[in-house]
Amino acid sequence: MMHSFGELVTKFTSYFNVRHFPMAPSTLYDPCEYFLGLGGKRIRPVMCLMGNELFDKITPDAYHVANAIELFHNFTLIHDDIMDKAPLRRGMQTVHTKFDEPTALLSGDVMMIQAYEYINKVRTNTIHRILTLFNKTAAQVCEGQQLDMDFEKKETVDLDDYIEMIGLKTSVLMAASLQLGAILGGAGDSNAKHLYEFGLNLGIAFQVQDDYLDAFGDPEKFGKQVGGDIVANKKTFLLIHALDVATGAQKEELQNLLKQNEDDKVEKVLAIYRSCGVDEWARSLKEKYVTVAFQHLEDIAVLSVRKKPLKELTSFLVQRDF
Amino acid sequence: MMHSFGELVTKFTSYFNVRHFPMAPSTLYDPCEYFLGLGGKRIRPVMCLMGNELFDKITPDAYHVANAIELFHNFTLIHDDIMDKAPLRRGMQTVHTKFDEPTALLSGDVMMIQAYEYINKVRTNTIHRILTLFNKTAAQVCEGQQLDMDFEKKETVDLDDYIEMIGLKTSVLMAASLQLGAILGGAGDSNAKHLYEFGLNLGIAFQVQDDYLDAFGDPEKFGKQVGGDIVANKKTFLLIHALDVATGAQKEELQNLLKQNEDDKVEKVLAIYRSCGVDEWARSLKEKYVTVAFQHLEDIAVLSVRKKPLKELTSFLVQRDF
Repeated sequence: MMHSFGELVTKFTSYFNVRHFPMAPSTLYDPCEYFLGLGGKRIRPVMCLMGNELFDKITPDAYHVANAIELFHNFTLIHDDIMDKAPLRRGMQTVHTKFDEPTALLSGDVMMIQAYEYINKVRTNTIHRILTLFNKTAAQVCEGQQLDMDFEKKETVDLDDYIEMIGLKTSVLMAASLQLGAILGGAGDSNAKHLYEFGLNLGIAFQVQDDYLDAFGDPEKFGKQVGGDIVANKKTFLLIHALDVATGAQKEELQNLLKQNEDDKVEKVLAIYRSCGVDEWARSLKEKYVTVAFQHLEDIAVLSVRKKPLKELTSFLVQRDF
Repeated sequence: MMHSFGELVTKFTSYFNVRHFPMAPSTLYDPCEYFLGLGGKRIRPVMCLMGNELFDKITPDAYHVANAIELFHNFTLIHDDIMDKAPLRRGMQTVHTKFDEPTALLSGDVMMIQAYEYINKVRTNTIHRILTLFNKTAAQVCEGQQLDMDFEKKETVDLDDYIEMIGLKTSVLMAASLQLGAILGGAGDSNAKHLYEFGLNLGIAFQVQDDYLDAFGDPEKFGKQVGGDIVANKKTFLLIHALDVATGAQKEELQNLLKQNEDDKVEKVLAIYRSCGVDEWARSLKEKYVTVAFQHLEDIAVLSVRKKPLKELTSFLVQRDF
């Protein structure tokens, strides 16, 4: 029997909810456990289980690799929070805020090492293919974070360059999570490749949706302050497109708004976004990527009933308004 | 034909002296190449080759693992320099000084990932044993660095705790480097274990010698300012022992000296060290660890002529006065 997306989230969450690190030295490992304890949606490891179950019954190796993926993802969050000087994550103190920067740096390092120890538990002869994909993806995520920091220093960024960065920073880990599960499930090269492309396009659509909700989401459903990206002058799909299509006067107003932080900043930026049609553009961009993702899902040669959980995942990631 | 220690250093250095990272994004990978270009003695990877050649002709896998060890070691240096806020390394700017902290953090991360990609090149069925030892050692090195930072915040540290910390921070990587080579050379468990213990004890002796030279070395041969640890109030074997054995009056003087940084600080601390017999104590502590190391070397069941390079290594690490 296959599992729905929701069942797999529940299954993985309870499996993952154990101590992953030794007790001592507590100054190193307590921060690791603290951060994992903040929770998270565990989307990426669940994608590994889904990629696995698309082809076969879930194997124990898929759980090991799912653990590795989740630890790797949390390692990147701990280090990103240091780089971004972020005080909060999921409404709680970040590791470098609750402890200190050296501790956060080292806790992240040892979390990545523990990720590789879970990879080491893979008992089939796929270990080299798993490591190759995991390493390549890990390096790409670092490249994406570096490009993101580089872009923050620039005044304007080309949309294609921005999409490439988001692909590295966000999508490749989703795509790889699915493909790692698929490899462990004995998928052929063509099926594994289409699944990867599904994940890559889904990841971009997910980020477009994320940017869209930050600006246009219902604050009650969204659960966090709307316009956070605008207040922080964060480069998003919306801002980059707005600067591309705005009239001379709008562009000037937008650039002036980026230099200040008055009470009506969010409202004024949103007004420009709306008058440039940024909201409609973002919705159709998201649709474009979802369509390509579904074409690749279509091309995977397994019974279509097996693909149902991946369709549920897509709804969860890109049609959500919360 | 076996190689001498010096020959292996030359061999590895020229093998390692290639580009290890992609060209782009240069903002991420140039800092990695810059740091590797600062050089270093390449002791640890050479120990891997020596551990390998102790048992058999050097295998290509030993070179892959040696690369992984050297990249891992350099990753720890880049991150340690951030944590210690060190401006210089080998007389040149550290990565976070030449570039910035976020870049140094991320360059270190991607260097560790590349280390694992070299591990992934191991083609024999030892891959799981190699990964297990590599991961365990990597985590221990992080534990050692954390304990070191914890100790810096304390007024006094117990000698046994300090030795445990040095073991983790410095010795385990040397011990593991030898043992990783041995595993790839087909060593039996007993031989591999004695080689590990040899490396562990040698590593402690090396650190005692390092602390000794910083205080009592010949400045002309030593190549760096004598007393650097004293100026920085760094906890060393010497300071910890001095605080253990000093008379009440000496202890008070020492603690007052730690609170200031006047011109005669080094001279005055050295006078206390000498009158407490710290110099003689350090030399005999070093001898103690070298003796235990040699006992383990003795117990390795291979022709004694094969052990010659390891004896040369020992001389290089602990009898050097430069």
